[in-house]
Amino acid sequence: MISRLINEIEKKNAPIVVGLDPMLSYIPEHLMESAYANCGHTLEAAGEAIFYFNKAIIDATEDLIPAIKPQIAMYEQFGIPGLLAFQKTVDYAHKKGILVIGDVKRGDIGSTSAAYATAHLGSIDVGGKTFSPFREDFATVNPYLGSDGINPFIEECNASDKGIFVLVKTSNPSSGEFQDQLIDGHPLYELVGKAVEKWGKNSMDGSYSNVGAVVGATYPEMGKTLRKLMPHAYILVPGYGAQGGKGEDLACFFNRDGLGAIVNSSRGIICAYQKEEYASFGAANFADASRQAVEDMLSDIRSALGKE
Amino acid sequence: MISRLINEIEKKNAPIVVGLDPMLSYIPEHLMESAYANCGHTLEAAGEAIFYFNKAIIDATEDLIPAIKPQIAMYEQFGIPGLLAFQKTVDYAHKKGILVIGDVKRGDIGSTSAAYATAHLGSIDVGGKTFSPFREDFATVNPYLGSDGINPFIEECNASDKGIFVLVKTSNPSSGEFQDQLIDGHPLYELVGKAVEKWGKNSMDGSYSNVGAVVGATYPEMGKTLRKLMPHAYILVPGYGAQGGKGEDLACFFNRDGLGAIVNSSRGIICAYQKEEYASFGAANFADASRQAVEDMLSDIRSALGKE
Repeated sequence: MISRLINEIEKKNAPIVVGLDPMLSYIPEHLMESAYANCGHTLEAAGEAIFYFNKAIIDATEDLIPAIKPQIAMYEQFGIPGLLAFQKTVDYAHKKGILVIGDVKRGDIGSTSAAYATAHLGSIDVGGKTFSPFREDFATVNPYLGSDGINPFIEECNASDKGIFVLVKTSNPSSGEFQDQLIDGHPLYELVGKAVEKWGKNSMDGSYSNVGAVVGATYPEMGKTLRKLMPHAYILVPGYGAQGGKGEDLACFFNRDGLGAIVNSSRGIICAYQKEEYASFGAANFADASRQAVEDMLSDIRSALGKE
Repeated sequence: MISRLINEIEKKNAPIVVGLDPMLSYIPEHLMESAYANCGHTLEAAGEAIFYFNKAIIDATEDLIPAIKPQIAMYEQFGIPGLLAFQKTVDYAHKKGILVIGDVKRGDIGSTSAAYATAHLGSIDVGGKTFSPFREDFATVNPYLGSDGINPFIEECNASDKGIFVLVKTSNPSSGEFQDQLIDGHPLYELVGKAVEKWGKNSMDGSYSNVGAVVGATYPEMGKTLRKLMPHAYILVPGYGAQGGKGEDLACFFNRDGLGAIVNSSRGIICAYQKEEYASFGAANFADASRQAVEDMLSDIRSALGKE
């Protein structure tokens, strides 16, 4: 699967992913009103508004972006109707040829981790018929439980041609509380990074592995070290834009081949119309504002990589 | 919320929780056939069979157990119909006065962690109406992202009188890969344990905190140390039975007041009828086999605690 992502990134000269992490406060009034008119003040209305919001952003950016990254928590908070909107978003992206990184940060052990891998990347048999529950192409995975939690995902990657990104160094301020703790003189995130490189050997797909890593844009120095420790891992880089990461900080996450990283922006893209910079688009044209924000993000990153 | 759990545990003299982690292979043929007859070979059939399986076990054990712990991965793997079965199981347990620990192992940062807390423990506003998505009483949470991931859950615990159990030392064989690494001479799980005790001070409910910890029954020596490091944390102890933990290993997870821990068994209870020991019940009486397995687990644990 990582080779498919790389193809899309190269085709569009766009090592970026749009985080579709909708809150109701991000959704323009006219979409909310139309959903309320159809479904009343219900979770179903929230799900409908979220899906049409996502759809408009996908429609406005589909020629520019290789992938979306829906954050499942933002859907799960609306219960079953929210998860239906998640599923519809995944399917709509696929219809447009866009890959989907499910930001699900799941992680458990043994048969339970296998069940999560089935839910998000695989398929399940019911009385001889096969169903694919959530149908993402990649999932993010938490490493705290060790190999027992990761191996079932790798088996699913190999069985269904899918990929994962393992949390290594997250973008948030408190990520250091545990991740930066020194073990024999090296921070925990390096130990996890080395494990990612090792796990990745079991699911190579071209020059890169289906086992990637999450490293926050907000920690470029650590990104530099991790880039070297995990030469075969694609790095998913959150924290660009709203969380403070800038294009110039990002070069260190890439390999010399110009590959090896994909940078996520969520609020910076999907809430663009609410920012002063793009306010002139107006709420009615929120998706055009998102397109402009994607173009601006692309020039920032292409220029940092010397790939204009 | 932890005081409600303690009340139920004391009332029933039962510091145990039944893990409702169904696989289709655990479900007796007659339940599967009836679900297939109603819904065909579909995810809906899987959801229906799972719910009726759970319902029978709850009905057969309700007077003995204070809580159930459904593992959401086992439902998520059946997509939306699976999650509907999860929701119905939560609601059915509540109808019977049984508390629900959602074994969801969620964990993210800031507004995303808040969204998970809303999904599982809280409620959300849609156009002035309030909905509670998954309605558990407790959720398990992954600590890898640090305080940014935990604090939003604690806020929800305080706002909605709920509780969490933070993964500290998990029961699986590879849990040591990261959790046992030494930091200034102490393993990472101790550092996480200390953080649990600190976080817990912000959500006290009687002598214990709404912020508990997960420590596997398979590591009793570590449980002993962690018990001392986290005097106010209730410990959720998985790994009893099928994973190898025994009653005699469990005393160290409890405080001198006889409280402080709740022991989970999943397969040992819900698959009892498939084990030689309880095979005489037969598949038709699978729930009675589960009741017998609960009674046997209770005498094992009560005897280890001197509470017969």
